[in-house]
Amino acid sequence: MNNLEDIAKLIRYYSLVMPTEAGSGHPTSSLSAADLMTGLLFGGTFKYDLDNPQHPNNDRLIFSKGHASPLFYSLWAAAGKVSEQELMTYRKFTSNLEGHPTREFRFTEAATGSLGQGLSIGVGMALNAKYIDKLPYRTYVLLGDSEMAEGSQWEAMELAAFYKLDNLTGIMDVNRLGQRGETMYGHNLSVYRDRVSAFGWEPIVIDGHHMPQILTAYKQALSSRDKPVMIIARTIKGKGVSFIEDKNGWHGRPLKKDELVRALEELGPIDKATTGKIEKPDNLRPAETSPSSAEPVSYSTEKPVATRHAYGTALERLFPEFPNIVVLDAEVSNSTYSELFKARYPERFFEMFIAEQNMVGTALGLSLRGKSPFVSTFAAFLSRAFDQIRMSQYSKADIKFCGSHAGVSIGEDGSSQMGLEDIALFRTLLHSVILYPSDAVSTEKLVAEMAKHKGISYLRTTRKETPIIYRNDEAFRIGGSKLLKSNRADVAVIVAAGITVHEALQAYEELKKENILVRVIDLYSIKPLDVAALVIAAHETGAVITVEDHFAEGGLGEAVMSALAGINVPVYPLAVRKMPRSGKPAELLEYEEISASAIVKRTREIAKRRQNS
Amino acid sequence: MNNLEDIAKLIRYYSLVMPTEAGSGHPTSSLSAADLMTGLLFGGTFKYDLDNPQHPNNDRLIFSKGHASPLFYSLWAAAGKVSEQELMTYRKFTSNLEGHPTREFRFTEAATGSLGQGLSIGVGMALNAKYIDKLPYRTYVLLGDSEMAEGSQWEAMELAAFYKLDNLTGIMDVNRLGQRGETMYGHNLSVYRDRVSAFGWEPIVIDGHHMPQILTAYKQALSSRDKPVMIIARTIKGKGVSFIEDKNGWHGRPLKKDELVRALEELGPIDKATTGKIEKPDNLRPAETSPSSAEPVSYSTEKPVATRHAYGTALERLFPEFPNIVVLDAEVSNSTYSELFKARYPERFFEMFIAEQNMVGTALGLSLRGKSPFVSTFAAFLSRAFDQIRMSQYSKADIKFCGSHAGVSIGEDGSSQMGLEDIALFRTLLHSVILYPSDAVSTEKLVAEMAKHKGISYLRTTRKETPIIYRNDEAFRIGGSKLLKSNRADVAVIVAAGITVHEALQAYEELKKENILVRVIDLYSIKPLDVAALVIAAHETGAVITVEDHFAEGGLGEAVMSALAGINVPVYPLAVRKMPRSGKPAELLEYEEISASAIVKRTREIAKRRQNS
Repeated sequence: MNNLEDIAKLIRYYSLVMPTEAGSGHPTSSLSAADLMTGLLFGGTFKYDLDNPQHPNNDRLIFSKGHASPLFYSLWAAAGKVSEQELMTYRKFTSNLEGHPTREFRFTEAATGSLGQGLSIGVGMALNAKYIDKLPYRTYVLLGDSEMAEGSQWEAMELAAFYKLDNLTGIMDVNRLGQRGETMYGHNLSVYRDRVSAFGWEPIVIDGHHMPQILTAYKQALSSRDKPVMIIARTIKGKGVSFIEDKNGWHGRPLKKDELVRALEELGPIDKATTGKIEKPDNLRPAETSPSSAEPVSYSTEKPVATRHAYGTALERLFPEFPNIVVLDAEVSNSTYSELFKARYPERFFEMFIAEQNMVGTALGLSLRGKSPFVSTFAAFLSRAFDQIRMSQYSKADIKFCGSHAGVSIGEDGSSQMGLEDIALFRTLLHSVILYPSDAVSTEKLVAEMAKHKGISYLRTTRKETPIIYRNDEAFRIGGSKLLKSNRADVAVIVAAGITVHEALQAYEELKKENILVRVIDLYSIKPLDVAALVIAAHETGAVITVEDHFAEGGLGEAVMSALAGINVPVYPLAVRKMPRSGKPAELLEYEEISASAIVKRTREIAKRRQNS
Repeated sequence: MNNLEDIAKLIRYYSLVMPTEAGSGHPTSSLSAADLMTGLLFGGTFKYDLDNPQHPNNDRLIFSKGHASPLFYSLWAAAGKVSEQELMTYRKFTSNLEGHPTREFRFTEAATGSLGQGLSIGVGMALNAKYIDKLPYRTYVLLGDSEMAEGSQWEAMELAAFYKLDNLTGIMDVNRLGQRGETMYGHNLSVYRDRVSAFGWEPIVIDGHHMPQILTAYKQALSSRDKPVMIIARTIKGKGVSFIEDKNGWHGRPLKKDELVRALEELGPIDKATTGKIEKPDNLRPAETSPSSAEPVSYSTEKPVATRHAYGTALERLFPEFPNIVVLDAEVSNSTYSELFKARYPERFFEMFIAEQNMVGTALGLSLRGKSPFVSTFAAFLSRAFDQIRMSQYSKADIKFCGSHAGVSIGEDGSSQMGLEDIALFRTLLHSVILYPSDAVSTEKLVAEMAKHKGISYLRTTRKETPIIYRNDEAFRIGGSKLLKSNRADVAVIVAAGITVHEALQAYEELKKENILVRVIDLYSIKPLDVAALVIAAHETGAVITVEDHFAEGGLGEAVMSALAGINVPVYPLAVRKMPRSGKPAELLEYEEISASAIVKRTREIAKRRQNS
């Protein structure tokens, strides 16, 4: 049996010393949860193979309140897996012990630090345990009371209850104080209890510094059936050091050297040799499914097909080859066509309802448990979850996003439903992949590339049907492009993607009648870009026209300009620049000057200028 | 007295005919709320001057479920203010009756269509009535049951209860069916009642097609004290047309011509001459405060000041000149320094807690009631509310955003807290303004420009202190820039903003020692850009180096490339390109190659190349 008092003391010691050594950090937010976490890891409930953090049956611990990182790192030190020397590198440039936990540290399940995201990640991991891997591991999420103000938490709550995730336990560290003062409810725990209960969870209210109550709560949580459990713990911020206890003004503030001396005196003697034991989990692993080949792609050039439809068809077709695929959708599966996958593989499809933030957090949790989540909604509505998407890059996520209904070409539904900034958003992510197919064949091939690719990728699909322009055996690759039209005397290269490829092809035909020849590139991979192909086309034609159904900023046009920044060839970007509105797709493409006729007009100007020079 | 039955029938008629005429739209989602809305507008509770939609004491009605736009437009037609002819333009290119309500239509309070946003806008309007304008108008928000899954709704709920907004009434149209099937709770109204109650609202559960119950509920809501009221109404999707009632598969689907004939037969005779009367509100107006001059800016060049600190000082200093200012912050006012304003003008500061989505929606509501909201949090966390920010552009909002802790220069807190995509996000917004000051003086001057400007503007501030480089009487303008260093023999122009201006100035000094001269531009206005100044500098020096503490995509570098796309001068962008981490600010600037030494290195390469050519 572990001596929990000694362990908690050691953890408090480290939690105080690290921030002072670093000159920044959150000691008081660590102290409030020190007993809760000591009780969890070392009180006999938590099962974990310390030598194998990736063991598929380890219990999972996510620090949603990531600023309590001194506590987080101290726990693993108390388990004997991090040296005091390593702890003292906290927040330093070369250390893996960053200000907020990242996956550079081997015991971090997910990077946190943007509040209100950990519970959704936990939902993903618990969903995986219950419905996919079918393993008995449990997922624990440490939550701050301040962060319960985030709506994303309540999205996670409702979904966890809906899916009866009795293997998920939240631990709410109600220390009363936020960064700049009291929370909305202070120590009024009944507010949290009522809300938790109304959202379908089992609440357990305890004193978060009373070890027997803590241990009982964890035990009780184990026996919950069909309901997730929330332990709501009354705690004291700064607990254990009288002069910082329950005091405002101590958030994110390390103790000064002399204050630390006083604090450590109050803490009393520490036994640094104390090592907490954690029991290993049963050595269970998920059943493995061997992949089998997917059916080949088969489209007829006679019938136009929407790329969003091809996305659904592709998921369904590809699952046998990529049996780790899991599909999530935010209540629009009949629009994104992920419903085609759902119909065939209902056990691998999870309805996320209209709660995009939790959908992305859940996908991250699934990804971190080795799954390949495909996540779809309207491109416009992925902007709802952009903080979660941003954070997922710091967890080295493997998530495949699909945003449908891109651009003004959706037509009558109007501006609120048009994804016009999605390329800009996804381009900012480090090492992200952005694919924007123009027909069903390229969509299918690119979905397969996404399934193979490890990392964050994004597919942009179009609402309306578009003609099939590629052969079923055509190959597509991340970072590639297609030269659709090319002649020696081209006066410009039209660089298009998605819906505008068809406008460019139409412009090509119209210009040809006037004996003006243009090159046409389908830039289906917007990130990474096929720089070599762009440079050649720019040099050979002397003018680049980009055309995109997206706002001008951060989209295809600027991506191309970035790629050609060193090249002496002018770029003429056509993009959405006027307030979009309802109307027919063709009217809107015309209005925004991204239609065939806009391309023709711009090309004529270039041709005329060249003749005159 | 209005004949509510006749009016509801007429509204149902229009709600059916419009989508069929348009070929798209949501008739069934309109029919479920037809009785609720008829009862509200024409049942005697709602006060509205139909000839003056902007009357400051009008009751406000927001359709959070914006897809019920046929119902919305029909209501105003039933009030005699929209002709049947205009209704028949619904969703057509030149019509103001768009697919989802926009402010092109004169009775629309706020553009909606991205679900889960209307309640926050209502919170802003109700906050304005209760605490700022001190007017008795009431705010009503029509909510769908599906959209209650959005976390943003619960953020609005908790805030409305916290601020005791008894002048706010939500109307939940529980029609059981979402877009692709049943909601999480179907017709289980007790789930909603328990949650609404747990979140501090007064729930009133009714049959949403029983007019006496509807009218009683509105009357009851009027008498609530200190609590917002949620009317939870059991409704039938498609109510009134038996063959579409309560049936899945009828979301966003207009009736075919023959189906419409059957539906209208069932509806029975309509009296198109029916006109509902709405009582006018008391002709009250808010007290007006005359502006007085703000104190002048006064900084000493001897003491560095963080631009985030200057933001707070500026708000406090400027309020007398701009008495419409209201300040909101998401529980980080001691970091963004909006707390300086709060200390001086507590009645104009609203703590929004850690709920950024609702903060932005609330700001939109305040803006639409004539206020000038300044909204602050960490730049990184504004990404949490990007869908709300995106939607605010369609409401023609006047909101001033401030994102602090921009870039890797925040240091030890690490990647989760670093705003590295904020410029890209804000650049996508139509007609947005983006300002990024480098010192306290320019910050103060630019905050004043933001206060004057009508529209969406964004200020990016820096965590650490930076030297004062401008005189207190220096002028700054939206769309301007400052030429800080200039010589005849400059080999390149360094274009910087914010923290990197100081790196550029340091690089200038170091290069000067090597007899390499560079021009330095402070591009404090990133949108709009000072294109003329950039073009001149590019031409005169022959090389542009951009340097920014932001990811490479969509930021300052690409903005400059866009502006110089037609110019034959190479652009060398320095930006954040590696996985950011914890460390000292200087270490991180160095690591990401956006430091003085990185600028020196790049400039030397350019100088050497030029010597050799």
